[in-house]
Amino acid sequence: MSKGVPLVYVFMGSDSDLPVMEECAAVFRVFGIPFEMIISSAHRSPERTAKLAVEAGKNGVKVIIAGAGAAAHLAGVIASHTTLPVIGVPLISGELGGLDALLSTVQMPAGVPVAAMAIGKAGAKNAALLAVEILALGNRKLAEHLVKYRRELSAQVEAKSKKLQDKMQKSGK
Amino acid sequence: MSKGVPLVYVFMGSDSDLPVMEECAAVFRVFGIPFEMIISSAHRSPERTAKLAVEAGKNGVKVIIAGAGAAAHLAGVIASHTTLPVIGVPLISGELGGLDALLSTVQMPAGVPVAAMAIGKAGAKNAALLAVEILALGNRKLAEHLVKYRRELSAQVEAKSKKLQDKMQKSGK
Amino acid sequence: MSKGVPLVYVFMGSDSDLPVMEECAAVFRVFGIPFEMIISSAHRSPERTAKLAVEAGKNGVKVIIAGAGAAAHLAGVIASHTTLPVIGVPLISGELGGLDALLSTVQMPAGVPVAAMAIGKAGAKNAALLAVEILALGNRKLAEHLVKYRRELSAQVEAKSKKLQDKMQKSGK
Amino acid sequence: MSKGVPLVYVFMGSDSDLPVMEECAAVFRVFGIPFEMIISSAHRSPERTAKLAVEAGKNGVKVIIAGAGAAAHLAGVIASHTTLPVIGVPLISGELGGLDALLSTVQMPAGVPVAAMAIGKAGAKNAALLAVEILALGNRKLAEHLVKYRRELSAQVEAKSKKLQDKMQKSGK
Amino acid sequence: MSKGVPLVYVFMGSDSDLPVMEECAAVFRVFGIPFEMIISSAHRSPERTAKLAVEAGKNGVKVIIAGAGAAAHLAGVIASHTTLPVIGVPLISGELGGLDALLSTVQMPAGVPVAAMAIGKAGAKNAALLAVEILALGNRKLAEHLVKYRRELSAQVEAKSKKLQDKMQKSGK
Amino acid sequence: MSKGVPLVYVFMGSDSDLPVMEECAAVFRVFGIPFEMIISSAHRSPERTAKLAVEAGKNGVKVIIAGAGAAAHLAGVIASHTTLPVIGVPLISGELGGLDALLSTVQMPAGVPVAAMAIGKAGAKNAALLAVEILALGNRKLAEHLVKYRRELSAQVEAKSKKLQDKMQKSGK
Amino acid sequence: MSKGVPLVYVFMGSDSDLPVMEECAAVFRVFGIPFEMIISSAHRSPERTAKLAVEAGKNGVKVIIAGAGAAAHLAGVIASHTTLPVIGVPLISGELGGLDALLSTVQMPAGVPVAAMAIGKAGAKNAALLAVEILALGNRKLAEHLVKYRRELSAQVEAKSKKLQDKMQKSGK
Amino acid sequence: MSKGVPLVYVFMGSDSDLPVMEECAAVFRVFGIPFEMIISSAHRSPERTAKLAVEAGKNGVKVIIAGAGAAAHLAGVIASHTTLPVIGVPLISGELGGLDALLSTVQMPAGVPVAAMAIGKAGAKNAALLAVEILALGNRKLAEHLVKYRRELSAQVEAKSKKLQDKMQKSGK
Repeated sequence: MSKGVPLVYVFMGSDSDLPVMEECAAVFRVFGIPFEMIISSAHRSPERTAKLAVEAGKNGVKVIIAGAGAAAHLAGVIASHTTLPVIGVPLISGELGGLDALLSTVQMPAGVPVAAMAIGKAGAKNAALLAVEILALGNRKLAEHLVKYRRELSAQVEAKSKKLQDKMQKSGK
Repeated sequence: MSKGVPLVYVFMGSDSDLPVMEECAAVFRVFGIPFEMIISSAHRSPERTAKLAVEAGKNGVKVIIAGAGAAAHLAGVIASHTTLPVIGVPLISGELGGLDALLSTVQMPAGVPVAAMAIGKAGAKNAALLAVEILALGNRKLAEHLVKYRRELSAQVEAKSKKLQDKMQKSGK
Repeated sequence: MSKGVPLVYVFMGSDSDLPVMEECAAVFRVFGIPFEMIISSAHRSPERTAKLAVEAGKNGVKVIIAGAGAAAHLAGVIASHTTLPVIGVPLISGELGGLDALLSTVQMPAGVPVAAMAIGKAGAKNAALLAVEILALGNRKLAEHLVKYRRELSAQVEAKSKKLQDKMQKSGK
Repeated sequence: MSKGVPLVYVFMGSDSDLPVMEECAAVFRVFGIPFEMIISSAHRSPERTAKLAVEAGKNGVKVIIAGAGAAAHLAGVIASHTTLPVIGVPLISGELGGLDALLSTVQMPAGVPVAAMAIGKAGAKNAALLAVEILALGNRKLAEHLVKYRRELSAQVEAKSKKLQDKMQKSGK
Repeated sequence: MSKGVPLVYVFMGSDSDLPVMEECAAVFRVFGIPFEMIISSAHRSPERTAKLAVEAGKNGVKVIIAGAGAAAHLAGVIASHTTLPVIGVPLISGELGGLDALLSTVQMPAGVPVAAMAIGKAGAKNAALLAVEILALGNRKLAEHLVKYRRELSAQVEAKSKKLQDKMQKSGK
Repeated sequence: MSKGVPLVYVFMGSDSDLPVMEECAAVFRVFGIPFEMIISSAHRSPERTAKLAVEAGKNGVKVIIAGAGAAAHLAGVIASHTTLPVIGVPLISGELGGLDALLSTVQMPAGVPVAAMAIGKAGAKNAALLAVEILALGNRKLAEHLVKYRRELSAQVEAKSKKLQDKMQKSGK
Repeated sequence: MSKGVPLVYVFMGSDSDLPVMEECAAVFRVFGIPFEMIISSAHRSPERTAKLAVEAGKNGVKVIIAGAGAAAHLAGVIASHTTLPVIGVPLISGELGGLDALLSTVQMPAGVPVAAMAIGKAGAKNAALLAVEILALGNRKLAEHLVKYRRELSAQVEAKSKKLQDKMQKSGK
Repeated sequence: MSKGVPLVYVFMGSDSDLPVMEECAAVFRVFGIPFEMIISSAHRSPERTAKLAVEAGKNGVKVIIAGAGAAAHLAGVIASHTTLPVIGVPLISGELGGLDALLSTVQMPAGVPVAAMAIGKAGAKNAALLAVEILALGNRKLAEHLVKYRRELSAQVEAKSKKLQDKMQKSGK
């Protein structure tokens, strides 16, 4: 399913954001969700960004993810041009630790929601997982895959805990 | 449609959060979405919160909203028990302006997403609108209603602008 | 000159911003600068905002001021559609004291500048004064008026200081 | 005493937290307190975390320590399932310097306390020392050991001061 | 038991802190814990503060609570003079929302722990509850009382939730 | 001594700062230190501010206090024109709680020190007390007065503590 | 045009700021704007800074840029001595991420505006672009150059997006 | 003069603070001020810290400097035991950039002043310079040395500016 018509657009404001936003791609490959990665800036290419946002719905896209740093307007600008769910990922740029991007992404005015994720890689990964959760509402297989994915997360934690306890016991604690 | 089986659960940690979380109810009434308001605390009633989160999906719920203040764990705790989309609304409590609730809600670790909204009333309203956007992916009528809703928002802004300009012109600017 | 073709557009995202943004109007009346107050939202009326920004230059506007709160994208969105100088005024909305609006306004990416002012009324007043300073580069009379304005500011401070010292002396300190 | 039934559980959300949380282990070895290190996540393994918290008291555990980063819910979630004293250590993850973890840990609502420590290694060490202080209330030997430990801390500071003053005197200041 | 030799000292830096620190007294009365309220400042009465901290243990005190605002050194200064568990409550004073008091209380250096609570009233209440949890380790009745207290908290939340749902149902939602 | 040639200049940027800066006057009256209150702005009356700073030393002034809010440059600008000790009091203006004024006052570059005080009234009072401490280095009577002043502070705290304990005892605790 | 009488002064407080402020020079070379780079400190060379600011206008300068870190008073001090537009660039120095410099630059009191840019290199580049936008108001060629510059920015973003999509398609996504 | 009876005590909480606090020593050597460097912790060696603070005045010390990080209580604790001027230097420890130390140092309650300096090395250097300014009030030679020191600072800035302008001119700008 990951090579069909894209169900998710993953926007980023600059190619320097790719190493973080690739977390989305990795999740979508796991779940077999077709997606498209797009570089488009709220400020440097505003018309193209607006056009892509407006046409996304007509092209079959169901969810839009947008990652941006600093005065991170990208998710908000996209959300202003569509009624699809828009997920914003605040990225670190400069040395405020991403707080600027977080506040610019999350503090949307009443009427135009953006679903803000954590700053950086955890946020990019979770943006894709939230998109999968949304798509899974209309797709039982995907929903089951999600449940399995979570169970594996849980099992990994337990396995690591066991390994740590073994190690400590061996070392005579 | 707003009196059927609830499609959305709206959690809040305390009844003092009701005046803010009622913004959700108002939106759902506009769009005719059946919903349920639930008071349950991540810390004071953890078992019930977990149980409600686990059973939500089986009961036909599609989206969960959770509003909480301070060390706002409610949305994250609910998200840890379900793969439904969970939307978190950071509430103000005390005098850090909701920054504590925002960070506690948005900075979720990779694997378990929460869609964070703006702090306070704007966030509560947008949480409901995002839920509607998600439900509208599988409901064309709802999607059209959303487009109309946005168009009205836009028209209201323009009308206010016109009124302001008239007033300034009359006063000879 | 204040009733001619507007040289400055003063945008605000909502009519609730008017009490602050009126500080701009007061300054422009003092200096006789024709201006126009416009309510237009980056998120709720994005097309109109873009259109107004694009056409401003053709209509003879020289400087654009934009005041907005929360995820204050308005100045940045306008700046993305024009090469006129754009001045942003971060407004307080909610309880983060305007820090969200400040960071959303000032942290613009390289390529598209916004001139950020102080949060709130001081910022709105200074936005208009900066606009006057810019217009005064091509208008000697305006430049002289500015110098006089500053001299009066200085004289007012000195007068207040004298009054305070008199009062303290009388009270036998 | 450090190999008996554990008196303290030291939780961490991920094995990447181990280098910091090992500070606890070091302290417990000094004081001969049996303890157990457990990896369990509030979000990725919520049932296991709850189960361990609920059963801790029955297993003879007296104090629980929990270290977590970002939206650090771990200590709070554990505290919601037990009336044992729970000590939270906010860890750094990402670039907000641990402020997110600190606020998520310390701003607990009335009714369910978490004892928050400093961010990072100092906090992990102090979490263990606080646990020792609590255990020492019912154990005179431990109480005496603590007094000796503090006296040594004090002596170390004085020794370093002397060494510095000697060095400066030799260098003719 | 609440009129016997005090088991807990509740320090505050100033009598203006009393309305917040009274939350401690209310909790101790519920659990029948004898306590003493003391006004003593880290900066204005340092010798007395040190003396009281040093002698607390000899006088049978088991836990010390200290509430202070601004550069809140009180809990840390007390902790430097005792090996009893010290709980710090950051209070709001001025307009930084208590962030100054929180950081001054929680960021203790390795070696001398302070258990930091939430800012303000929630923190004061939880400080007393943590003290009760610590005292309950050596007192089965107190431990049972705590479990009952928590169960009531949980029941209150559920009751409020039910009341809300009834109200909404009656109003036809 | 309080009516002689002023030993301290107390600058403030605006007459609206007077209610806070009057705390200085109150302290100087207690200690009989002659002083002068001056309104002069770093930005609106820069020449006069510089002139007053340059001439202060020649006029017998020993210490300069400067209170300012927002981008609080006043103390720094004065310090750049004198080698007298300059004490800065950050004032609250707007809704950042004085954090802007604090950072603008305290973060002086190497070479030109400003002694920063707490934000607001406590800082204004302490600025005057620090000035007295400095003047007392060359004035034994003043030094003795200071010691007495501190002893009274301490006695007041103890008296309030006693009063509180009496009240609680009477109410049967 | 870039070797004529300078139209822009670019101040910085220290030669260590040069690597950031060189971003201004690069922009001015692209647009052929004559400029002058000046090191002058608000605190260490206040008279020279004031003199340069006062004389700038008489020397034909149209816009002044000032970059400074920490308690960044430079732009404000310059603005207090001129009615030319002054653009402030907050620089990072120390570990507050430039937040100190940002607040010291942007929170100017009513009456004396400073146009604040983003922290660091993006801000320095945008300061120069804003200066060009201001100069372009009286220079049609410059205005056209700016439009072309923006169009190129936009084209670069689109080209990078295309390259990314090609790469992903080749890798079979 | 730098080898006589110390006029200044320079406290630091830990020997790891030495690389920063050595800035004080460098300044005192330039001005020939005898001083003593002391390691003593507010929390780990409270009695010794108090004793040294109490006896400083009797030993001829005129000014006390104290550098500390995190919950930086050192300057405040010293100030509580003396009426000598106390200067606090907030140090960076951990990843809050020194904000914790700054607030713990500067937000002293009314009655017990601490003169807070900038975070880190600039603050340590300025602490010593402020001490020299205070000592210079009773020592004309020192006062003249300070004026010369400032003049050199100013000349250095001007020299660097000249060098930069020469370099840019040579490179054809």
